[in-house]
Amino acid sequence: MTESATPAYPVDALNRVKRRADRGHYDHETVHQLLDAAALCHVSYVVDGWPLCTPTLFWREGSTLYWHGSNSSRMLRGLSEGEPACLAVTHFDSLVLARCAFNHSADYRSVMAFGHARLVEDATEKARALTMMVDRFFPGRTAQLRPTTEQEINATTVVYMPIERASAKVRARGVVDDDEDYALPVYAERLPVRLVMGAPEPCPRLLPGVARPANLADYRDARPLEEAVAAMHHLAYPTD
Amino acid sequence: MTESATPAYPVDALNRVKRRADRGHYDHETVHQLLDAAALCHVSYVVDGWPLCTPTLFWREGSTLYWHGSNSSRMLRGLSEGEPACLAVTHFDSLVLARCAFNHSADYRSVMAFGHARLVEDATEKARALTMMVDRFFPGRTAQLRPTTEQEINATTVVYMPIERASAKVRARGVVDDDEDYALPVYAERLPVRLVMGAPEPCPRLLPGVARPANLADYRDARPLEEAVAAMHHLAYPTD
Repeated sequence: MTESATPAYPVDALNRVKRRADRGHYDHETVHQLLDAAALCHVSYVVDGWPLCTPTLFWREGSTLYWHGSNSSRMLRGLSEGEPACLAVTHFDSLVLARCAFNHSADYRSVMAFGHARLVEDATEKARALTMMVDRFFPGRTAQLRPTTEQEINATTVVYMPIERASAKVRARGVVDDDEDYALPVYAERLPVRLVMGAPEPCPRLLPGVARPANLADYRDARPLEEAVAAMHHLAYPTD
Repeated sequence: MTESATPAYPVDALNRVKRRADRGHYDHETVHQLLDAAALCHVSYVVDGWPLCTPTLFWREGSTLYWHGSNSSRMLRGLSEGEPACLAVTHFDSLVLARCAFNHSADYRSVMAFGHARLVEDATEKARALTMMVDRFFPGRTAQLRPTTEQEINATTVVYMPIERASAKVRARGVVDDDEDYALPVYAERLPVRLVMGAPEPCPRLLPGVARPANLADYRDARPLEEAVAAMHHLAYPTD
């Protein structure tokens, strides 16, 4: 296990990959790389005994995850001890059509991160988080916008969660059949899928002469979104 | 509200869309359409007070959702009353760059479905579910494969969940700025994203003469995955 030499998240019953344990990773590098290549996550909380699973934009800063509070805010307000949460990111890479039903599968790269979620309440910290909510994806953009108003700051909630446990799970094998099944005259394939950008659609109400800023150039037609999102993470957090 | 005339899921505190209630939908048609256009979902359970959020392939049959059991199986076995679960599907459609930070957003179409998850344990029902796990996405495919063995059936768990509550949430507005901000010389755009298929990658170990079956033709290079997945749902469940 070369992984033990690199920084890794602690492993216990909560985050240990049980089914297909060979696909599990706990090192910071693998976990962070998969988080930083995504804009969208699903966050789960428990409310009145029910798990709630909500999609939202998020970003990582060191070992802390941030996201837009949305309807979790009322629950979180004033909970200084935080609320148990799980943030999941999944890069869906393929559908796998094997020679038997049992070996049909999918390629994917996913992360589950656990911790206690809290509201960002300190004014300075909140102002910084609201800037990074935009600049993490579009570095330098907030400086090109009109300043955020106090009313807007008050109307937005940001949640943060230090990662306490995390695991990555990766399948990247394409078609894998039982040895004897390769002798069967059955068609099998890997069907790749990717989250890809289309051509940017400028707002129809742009003022004359307002051009697309150079700092958006990484977001371009036909490029996988994850490439741009990962590149922007490294621009926004160069020492990370 | 024209929706009240069409079949809809009951609404209560659990599934009512609170933030941006104008984006909420509860009618079967909207909810089912968004579910049927997806292959991947995130399922949340509560385990020892922690929410667990797991990606998995899933499908819908009427008002029941099915998915592969994976590591939830041990928890579910023998729980005849079922385990509270939330299944979420998100179609991520765009990043929205507005003229101020506050109006930066994303277009998306998402569903949250709540119910009690149980294992499919009846042998006949399980055999049918294991067939549909493949044929729902690739109609007619299991008939082209070698039969599933008893050992494989025993090694697979299928979970089902009758939908008790559900909501869809849709934002499809692109750039929306405050009236006065349209006068600013700031660039704004909608950056579309889509989950798109690549060229199918045939298994390198295919026997000579084994061609791609005609029933896979809907899965083709550069097509949005959701189009094929939705079309296959209607082939697999023509009377739904």
